[in-house]
Amino acid sequence: MALIVHKYGGTSMGSTERIRNVAKRVAKWARAGHQMVVVPSAMSGETNRLLGLAKDVSPAVQTPSVTRELDMIACTGEQVSVGLLSLALQAEGMEAVSYSGWQVPIRTDSSYTKARIQSIDDARVRADLAAGRVVVITGFQGVDEDMNITTLGRGGSDTSAVAVAAAMKADECLIYTDVDGVYTTDPRVVPEAKRLNTVSFEEMLEMASLGSKVLQIRSVEFAGKYRVPLRVLSSFTPWDIAIEEEAKSGTLITFEEDEKMEQAVVSGIAFNRDEAKLTVMGVPDRPGIAYGILGKVAEANIDVDVILQNVSHDGKTDFSFTVHRNDYQRTLDLLKSQVVPEMGAEAVIGDTKICKVSIVGIGMRSHAGVASTMFRALSDEGINIQMITTSEIKTSVVIDEKYMELAVRALHKAFGLDAA
Amino acid sequence: MALIVHKYGGTSMGSTERIRNVAKRVAKWARAGHQMVVVPSAMSGETNRLLGLAKDVSPAVQTPSVTRELDMIACTGEQVSVGLLSLALQAEGMEAVSYSGWQVPIRTDSSYTKARIQSIDDARVRADLAAGRVVVITGFQGVDEDMNITTLGRGGSDTSAVAVAAAMKADECLIYTDVDGVYTTDPRVVPEAKRLNTVSFEEMLEMASLGSKVLQIRSVEFAGKYRVPLRVLSSFTPWDIAIEEEAKSGTLITFEEDEKMEQAVVSGIAFNRDEAKLTVMGVPDRPGIAYGILGKVAEANIDVDVILQNVSHDGKTDFSFTVHRNDYQRTLDLLKSQVVPEMGAEAVIGDTKICKVSIVGIGMRSHAGVASTMFRALSDEGINIQMITTSEIKTSVVIDEKYMELAVRALHKAFGLDAA
Repeated sequence: MALIVHKYGGTSMGSTERIRNVAKRVAKWARAGHQMVVVPSAMSGETNRLLGLAKDVSPAVQTPSVTRELDMIACTGEQVSVGLLSLALQAEGMEAVSYSGWQVPIRTDSSYTKARIQSIDDARVRADLAAGRVVVITGFQGVDEDMNITTLGRGGSDTSAVAVAAAMKADECLIYTDVDGVYTTDPRVVPEAKRLNTVSFEEMLEMASLGSKVLQIRSVEFAGKYRVPLRVLSSFTPWDIAIEEEAKSGTLITFEEDEKMEQAVVSGIAFNRDEAKLTVMGVPDRPGIAYGILGKVAEANIDVDVILQNVSHDGKTDFSFTVHRNDYQRTLDLLKSQVVPEMGAEAVIGDTKICKVSIVGIGMRSHAGVASTMFRALSDEGINIQMITTSEIKTSVVIDEKYMELAVRALHKAFGLDAA
Repeated sequence: MALIVHKYGGTSMGSTERIRNVAKRVAKWARAGHQMVVVPSAMSGETNRLLGLAKDVSPAVQTPSVTRELDMIACTGEQVSVGLLSLALQAEGMEAVSYSGWQVPIRTDSSYTKARIQSIDDARVRADLAAGRVVVITGFQGVDEDMNITTLGRGGSDTSAVAVAAAMKADECLIYTDVDGVYTTDPRVVPEAKRLNTVSFEEMLEMASLGSKVLQIRSVEFAGKYRVPLRVLSSFTPWDIAIEEEAKSGTLITFEEDEKMEQAVVSGIAFNRDEAKLTVMGVPDRPGIAYGILGKVAEANIDVDVILQNVSHDGKTDFSFTVHRNDYQRTLDLLKSQVVPEMGAEAVIGDTKICKVSIVGIGMRSHAGVASTMFRALSDEGINIQMITTSEIKTSVVIDEKYMELAVRALHKAFGLDAA
């Protein structure tokens, strides 16, 4: 008997028929003797419908009092899901009980719409499991110390599931999604992309952060921090597939590095076009430029990704960085109104038509020349590199958005992943 | 400055445009210097949609674990409403904050789908009001001592609003509905029906219990118990109507009896066709007949309304009573299978084609001859009276359903309400 956490995405919960199928799958695991905790997302489309209503009554100003109300509204989608799934499990003859995040409780900070989990009290859930109940917990949400409802941001249900699995020391957390595992890259861009049976936690972290939308990055961080065995697998297999086969399907995210020694240097190619680039031109070159510019940006709660400070010419330099496209206009306004005058800079320019392409692999640590292979492959295709950033297990480049698919295909081939 | 509670029904909250209008109306009251608490219902159709989903995944068996989940699901409709209304108020420039029942908290017993309010802790709401915020609280729901969500049953938002007003000792509770007040009878049946400027709490209680669907009866009971001044008024007046005019519109439910001395003997004519009649025929006449029959009915949790025991003939008597039509078949089965054999009765007959028509008025207490005026008016129309029941402020008759409208019009005229 093991303690297993299942997480089902919005597509898997997309209709009452699908919810009944999820219930049948969970019941199969419970009947096999496992203690089951299930974390479902809102029915697909529901969160957008709710936020659409909110947008209809309120202009887009995002103050804490506005975002508090957005969380009050958005969290109801998951609450409906847990109630429905619990009913469907009862209809399957299981004892089942649902909880909202605040009922568990899942404690978070007060950063509405992007709260972070601080602690989970699992006493109530454990008591239910001991009594033979399947426990269904809302993803995506928690409660702050003043009993305000918070949400964890888009995709937060993955994080909820992993956090619950970590708090309860679950034997495995299975993330059921609409893909059947983690691939060397997006198969829609590179048809030769291969599914990985295992991927290291660190690689998965980079892949998630770089736009492989299989898992929310924070869920991977959580899994790494608490060493939660995490499996990504398809929710589209028939619910009555043999449990032994299902338990081995998909991609397992591992913490055992030595398993990887024989594998490819680069495990996968990640990419995204979620970012935009801003450049402050003609900044007088003196110590403190980075802080002078990015300090203001951080104060406005805007996350910065790739950063590039040019070599100085004639006592002046250019400073570029990327932010999420949703923050682009706000960042541009901030730079123009505050940073340019304070820093004595000349101008600000921006570009939303960029993308980021990355190669990811634990193997890069011990192999020289990986970056140069990457740059040659891009050069061979005539793709100009605008920015570069590197870490121990990944190298990313910012390039013109229109070359994204071409770059991904070229790199997939250059690192031998087509043949994997 | 007064502390005012507004309650808005599902129709008033039926679209984001209407929610913006509700916000404008509430903002008008707040700007006039009042402390405002608002209790909205779910957007119209939402509760039915949610319960439809639940019905889709689960058969109709109503165990406590099923009804617990139904409440988890159904309560989300109001939670979306409070979030949206709070956002709309913020868009109007007000400070506003929303709370679910459990956040206030509104404590109830654990009778899922029909919970009763036990206490309300108003500390948090008072702090918000003192800080100049409009507070928006979900109707229809609360939380039990184990932090399970409960709902109060259909129409429960009226009860929530009155309970909040009572707990906070509000100066007035305004119930905005799709009618503009309480009428002498249903204007769809009697076009001459007149709106009452005031109605006593006791009359309102009778009217509500007798099928005038303006207010949920439990909300009227609450208002009476805690002497909450309650006003029923239209949500369809323009939101920017002068506040002095709005504050006097609709019908005020009063507790001051002496105000009524000069008024009509009968305030209104109520009616419903929700009941069915059952008669146990030929019961041997001995002490304990009523208990022998109605004891079994009560044990089955069936509410009985009008009761009639005939005069005995030849040592046998007939015993009739009415129940809600939804309970008719169950009651009939119970009487046939258990009561008839145990009591040695001859037979059971039932009639679902009945209706109940009532005259209601505080004035009846001090005026003789009211009942005879009623009976004569019905007799003049050739309407046969099947059962009669009286109280200090109402007299009801059970008649053939097909005469209902005729009886209501005749009584409305006989008691001078056409001319009111």
